[in-house]
Amino acid sequence: VVIVGAGFGGLAAARRLDKQHVDVTLIDRHNYHTFLPLLYQVSTAGLNAADVGYPVRGVFRKRRRVLFRQGRVTGIDWQGQQVRIEGADPVSFDKLILAAGSATNYFGVPGAKEHSFPLYTLPDALRVRNHLLSLFEAADTRPDLVADRVLNFVVVGGGATGVEVSGAIVELIEKVLRRDFHDLDVSAARVILVERSDTLLGPFSQKSRDYALAQLRKKGVDVRLGTTVAEVAEDCVRFADGGSVPTRMVVWAAGIQADRLAGVGGWGQGPGGRITVGPDLAVEGHPDVFAIGDIADIDNGAGGRLPQLAQVALQGGKFAAKQILRDLAGEPRQVFRYRDKGTMATIGRRAAVAELAGGAKLKGFIAWLAWLMLHLVYLVGMRNRMSVLVNWGWNYLTWDRGPRLIVAAEPMPSRPQLTAGTPQERAIGAGPEQAASTATAAGDEATEP
Amino acid sequence: VVIVGAGFGGLAAARRLDKQHVDVTLIDRHNYHTFLPLLYQVSTAGLNAADVGYPVRGVFRKRRRVLFRQGRVTGIDWQGQQVRIEGADPVSFDKLILAAGSATNYFGVPGAKEHSFPLYTLPDALRVRNHLLSLFEAADTRPDLVADRVLNFVVVGGGATGVEVSGAIVELIEKVLRRDFHDLDVSAARVILVERSDTLLGPFSQKSRDYALAQLRKKGVDVRLGTTVAEVAEDCVRFADGGSVPTRMVVWAAGIQADRLAGVGGWGQGPGGRITVGPDLAVEGHPDVFAIGDIADIDNGAGGRLPQLAQVALQGGKFAAKQILRDLAGEPRQVFRYRDKGTMATIGRRAAVAELAGGAKLKGFIAWLAWLMLHLVYLVGMRNRMSVLVNWGWNYLTWDRGPRLIVAAEPMPSRPQLTAGTPQERAIGAGPEQAASTATAAGDEATEP
Repeated sequence: VVIVGAGFGGLAAARRLDKQHVDVTLIDRHNYHTFLPLLYQVSTAGLNAADVGYPVRGVFRKRRRVLFRQGRVTGIDWQGQQVRIEGADPVSFDKLILAAGSATNYFGVPGAKEHSFPLYTLPDALRVRNHLLSLFEAADTRPDLVADRVLNFVVVGGGATGVEVSGAIVELIEKVLRRDFHDLDVSAARVILVERSDTLLGPFSQKSRDYALAQLRKKGVDVRLGTTVAEVAEDCVRFADGGSVPTRMVVWAAGIQADRLAGVGGWGQGPGGRITVGPDLAVEGHPDVFAIGDIADIDNGAGGRLPQLAQVALQGGKFAAKQILRDLAGEPRQVFRYRDKGTMATIGRRAAVAELAGGAKLKGFIAWLAWLMLHLVYLVGMRNRMSVLVNWGWNYLTWDRGPRLIVAAEPMPSRPQLTAGTPQERAIGAGPEQAASTATAAGDEATEP
Repeated sequence: VVIVGAGFGGLAAARRLDKQHVDVTLIDRHNYHTFLPLLYQVSTAGLNAADVGYPVRGVFRKRRRVLFRQGRVTGIDWQGQQVRIEGADPVSFDKLILAAGSATNYFGVPGAKEHSFPLYTLPDALRVRNHLLSLFEAADTRPDLVADRVLNFVVVGGGATGVEVSGAIVELIEKVLRRDFHDLDVSAARVILVERSDTLLGPFSQKSRDYALAQLRKKGVDVRLGTTVAEVAEDCVRFADGGSVPTRMVVWAAGIQADRLAGVGGWGQGPGGRITVGPDLAVEGHPDVFAIGDIADIDNGAGGRLPQLAQVALQGGKFAAKQILRDLAGEPRQVFRYRDKGTMATIGRRAAVAELAGGAKLKGFIAWLAWLMLHLVYLVGMRNRMSVLVNWGWNYLTWDRGPRLIVAAEPMPSRPQLTAGTPQERAIGAGPEQAASTATAAGDEATEP
């Protein structure tokens, strides 16, 4: 069995299959699993990169049936039953699980891809952190830049990510940077959250939405509902109503689309490019290929689609693994039923909303505690849990954030390249090492068609 | 008082002056202090970047007399008593302390600067980590690369850094990566430590040297003494005796030279470009300018020079601050006397050497424990100490290393630039933000004359 993607769905499927002694090859473009729900805390200097990233090989250290390959899947060879990997040998499969997740969706807004900062991978998060802190350092050396509004931070999108990151940025500024910068007027800094619809946190109840809006405004976020972004320029954001806001940093949290892997197979695709699947999560016309999680367009049984959440991916991964085991045992396939366990979003220190499956709705301190506990439990790896606990405890008690370093590990100007390989590979000009490096960061955008 | 450099010396001087209510401006090209003695553990995936980096502004959060400026000092305007900062307004000084430390010295070896990896800053360390892990991922996808010797790792320089990093790399490979890579023949990997002289750890006693050599060899490091590197090429290292070793990764730990700041003042310079100073650490001909730590060429009172160690910088920083306070009080200057507290170096798990000032020599487990304790104590910040403790405890008990992620926060292809500023600054083409970004990583080499 080959699994593409080491997110929540891919890991769950691999673990399940390994338990039943099935050989698995897991492929991901990163050598780590990213715990996306806490990514925004890396971007706002609350956590280390390695607190939310866990080495995939570490997960399967003692499970020797699971092989890992770092690489980018570029296509599927149906005749040979192989997945193609950029710059490396293809990998054969009997069964295939597509779990590559999603990517940032710019919805074709002019300039959005060029001038705004996505927040969907660890390199994204580090870039947001570096740029945000650099703007403060720049303003501190050149006070004229403050009048130029370099301390305006715009977050686009009022979903969970947008709410969480704008809350975290305003707290970083008000509680940490205000004390860091002794001779800079930090009160000139503004965080503006822009949402197209007339409400934040669309999928939540009205009560939770109102609470989130009130809390964000109380913390100092300038929330602008019913505002559509028409263009992102180098030094401002323009709105559909003709208005604009000068800014040097736009965080794009407006939406996601299926990973580009969804487009390589020639199967049916639904909204956001997601792969159309049947009730057993198999891809239409390819019974041996499953699509799970964000990349799959799954019917919710009520005329709608399942949301792109960690729980959907987790349950889908386990389900797809089970169907493969049933195939091997000669049993018929089942129908995937998603068990909604509820959703939560945090707004900031001691403030969150949580809506549980039973109908219970929590908000404020209790919801925030529930959010902390649940994320600690779902985090992969005991070391990461301890490290997150140390950082959270520290942040909570001291109003400090340790990892607020501006540090980027850029590749060397003339880094030794792997020039060995087959002539064919040399012609492509991409050894596996190059593939690995383009898979890490800005390359994502640079190589997108 | 203006202090250039937020290393051990700069921080010590700033703290001392702040205590006596003197206004200080501290300038560094990074926004963090780097705890250099543990840098090699970041490069070998043992620690997080933020464990050995501490935000400078965090150090002086409650000391409002100390201002910080992130920037690169490009020169001194003697008439105006100002230091010039790239892309920003100059800063006036009454007294100046130069504490910019040192940089990697390639000794003019052809190809060394282009093809080897220095290990002197946090970006350096992350680059070493990313490249080392990427080579293993590449070898795993393309087994032919193993025969090509992509798993040969060469460390140049048998001083403390070279010994520590080669010991840490071999442990990373043998204890961690061997279990990570299920179908790769990790025993093909080799770590080669090359030293020009006929001994490791030159400044240590013969007994300690012998122990270090024996321990490294026992761990599997191929130590080659009396071997001079003649050239570093893209895919091999050539030696002066005509031999060569194929490799895709050379870590350059052969030596350091004074930071380029040492060359901007027109004062006297000693070996390695270090600034010549008098017995009161003042720069020749400039009584109001002090040079301390690695950047200063300090007489040891016995015809030699003081070594470039953290203790020399720490004591020099305190001393220079004291002389400034004496100047203000109208008291005469004193003569700097270095109090040697001893040196230590770690070879790996449960193995280190320590030579204390009293003449006591420790080795093995005891020395290793002493090394751990001392580094925890000297580390800046309680959060960093806790985080290091969590990571060390984890590494020790599980033989695992958490932060072994290949992740680089590369700048965006079209990152918003700060185009505002004076026409003069625009002409230079370097706003403060750009300066900040080039100050972080590869730019160091790219812009060196």
